Amino acid sequence: MASLPTLCDPRPGHATVREVGLRDGLQSIATTLPTAHKIAWLDAAYAAGQREIEVGSFVPARLLPQLADTAEVLAHALTLPGLVASVLVPNLKGAERAIDAGAHWMVVPLSASHAHSLANLRKTPDEVVAEVARIRATRDAAGSASRIEGGVGTAFGCTLQGDVAEDEVLRLLQALLDAGADRVSLADTVGYADPAGVQRLFEKARTLVGDRLAAAHFHDTRGMGLANCYAAWQAGITRFDACLGGIGGCPHAPGASGNVTTEDLAFMLERMGLSTGLDVAALLALRQRVQGWLAGETLHGTLWQAGLPRHTGASVSTLAQPA
Amino acid sequence: MASLPTLCDPRPGHATVREVGLRDGLQSIATTLPTAHKIAWLDAAYAAGQREIEVGSFVPARLLPQLADTAEVLAHALTLPGLVASVLVPNLKGAERAIDAGAHWMVVPLSASHAHSLANLRKTPDEVVAEVARIRATRDAAGSASRIEGGVGTAFGCTLQGDVAEDEVLRLLQALLDAGADRVSLADTVGYADPAGVQRLFEKARTLVGDRLAAAHFHDTRGMGLANCYAAWQAGITRFDACLGGIGGCPHAPGASGNVTTEDLAFMLERMGLSTGLDVAALLALRQRVQGWLAGETLHGTLWQAGLPRHTGASVSTLAQPA
Repeated sequence: MASLPTLCDPRPGHATVREVGLRDGLQSIATTLPTAHKIAWLDAAYAAGQREIEVGSFVPARLLPQLADTAEVLAHALTLPGLVASVLVPNLKGAERAIDAGAHWMVVPLSASHAHSLANLRKTPDEVVAEVARIRATRDAAGSASRIEGGVGTAFGCTLQGDVAEDEVLRLLQALLDAGADRVSLADTVGYADPAGVQRLFEKARTLVGDRLAAAHFHDTRGMGLANCYAAWQAGITRFDACLGGIGGCPHAPGASGNVTTEDLAFMLERMGLSTGLDVAALLALRQRVQGWLAGETLHGTLWQAGLPRHTGASVSTLAQPA
Repeated sequence: MASLPTLCDPRPGHATVREVGLRDGLQSIATTLPTAHKIAWLDAAYAAGQREIEVGSFVPARLLPQLADTAEVLAHALTLPGLVASVLVPNLKGAERAIDAGAHWMVVPLSASHAHSLANLRKTPDEVVAEVARIRATRDAAGSASRIEGGVGTAFGCTLQGDVAEDEVLRLLQALLDAGADRVSLADTVGYADPAGVQRLFEKARTLVGDRLAAAHFHDTRGMGLANCYAAWQAGITRFDACLGGIGGCPHAPGASGNVTTEDLAFMLERMGLSTGLDVAALLALRQRVQGWLAGETLHGTLWQAGLPRHTGASVSTLAQPA
């Protein structure tokens, strides 16, 4: 197999922002971004230092027309040296397409919430685990280098069933690995997670499966996205999903923000003294281009408004005025 | 002296959100809120469970006309049983007014950044320390119960001078206590702090001065406000300043968000399993009233848009569609 990062970024003092805007962002908005713009986005993200990008989803085009060109976008991604390209695959059929196309990583979503799983994937969580075993067998039989990440969503609560038991999340992480996933990740699909809960669950999960817990996926629906990234980082996580311009919003809360915003997260991680390899100013410039392509869609995030810190300028009173 | 909380909220599992919207929020916007509205805000905040509120600033009315009615607002606050009312006082003259008015707490701002201190307070940091000693002597001579909090601002960087040395911040915390402050707090006045830096500095500060480091004041200028609160909480801090509706913005970054938003922070803390005594739904309702009073001003925050979680509703695909 090709040498691909399986773990959290193993370099001390480094962290990885995995761009998911081209998948999680674009699937959640009405606009279909033309393939040429997706490729321009990929190229600019790559130029800004992004080296892990989820480029789309292998689902039928009638269900997600916004991602119908995933194979084309992936083919371009595979031409960029050192770029690790992932795709979402909801089942064996999608995985077969990903294997054929040579995706580096296949992310298989599983909902820890039984209710959410049935409603969205039409499978129980354990049926998804069984599908991962089939994907693994197919991958191995094909001698493919495509790796499998089991992504456990609704890990911090669910809009349908409310609480999701931590023990059930942990059981499913282990089951995914036992079924043949190369690594696993945890997602707060619906924006319910708080940082104390994040740190607690990630610590428990890492105690159970170690470095095979390789990524964290948070939404910023209630403003806690960056706090949750920090909490997961404290638990040893160094790979975070994020979405340029926070595009996508939240299907459960119209108008609310969606994924953690790439440029805000990159700024925070760099400010924390971590090396991300990212050029934050270039990401802000790309945000502006994407904003132009997605006229009419709401972008999110905070840094674009405040800008990068600049240590000059006129005196402005903040805490007090002299009296 | 009256029994007033000097430390971080000492009750296990509790946290305190100190409302600073009536001071830090209102001083930063063009609109002057009528006194009757400030009193209605106070009453509603009290009804929503807020028990620590900064009601204004004793500075000359010509400098901050928005806060010219601080004495009236404070007088009303003192009629609310169990409410701890603080005011900002930039110097001895302001402190004398606060003592006369019977404020529970006087918050004296000090800028750890030498450049920021000279530009905004027209004093060096050590001249502010000397002023605190005079305030303490005056307070004691008057037999007043008003306590003194030294608030060290620009503790995480400065728009004028850039970096602020941690050792200098620590030196000034100790100097304020030595000069007679009853407790101290740390503020990220300009929105430069990141959570790793926050946790590191708060841990160092608590090692130095223990529970006399009693509060954290963050701005959300670059989206890290809640992450910084979580980081400070990890260092043992349980009192946080925040601003209803995030009003006030940032004088250094037009259009950017200002203080941490009260209702977002209250939601996060409650979600973390801490008891704040706050009714978040009532805070959201108050936000709407304040929004109406401040027509034309931009409010900030995230929770108001997404709303409180509700575990019902139609199925919506998030991670994937069935294929």
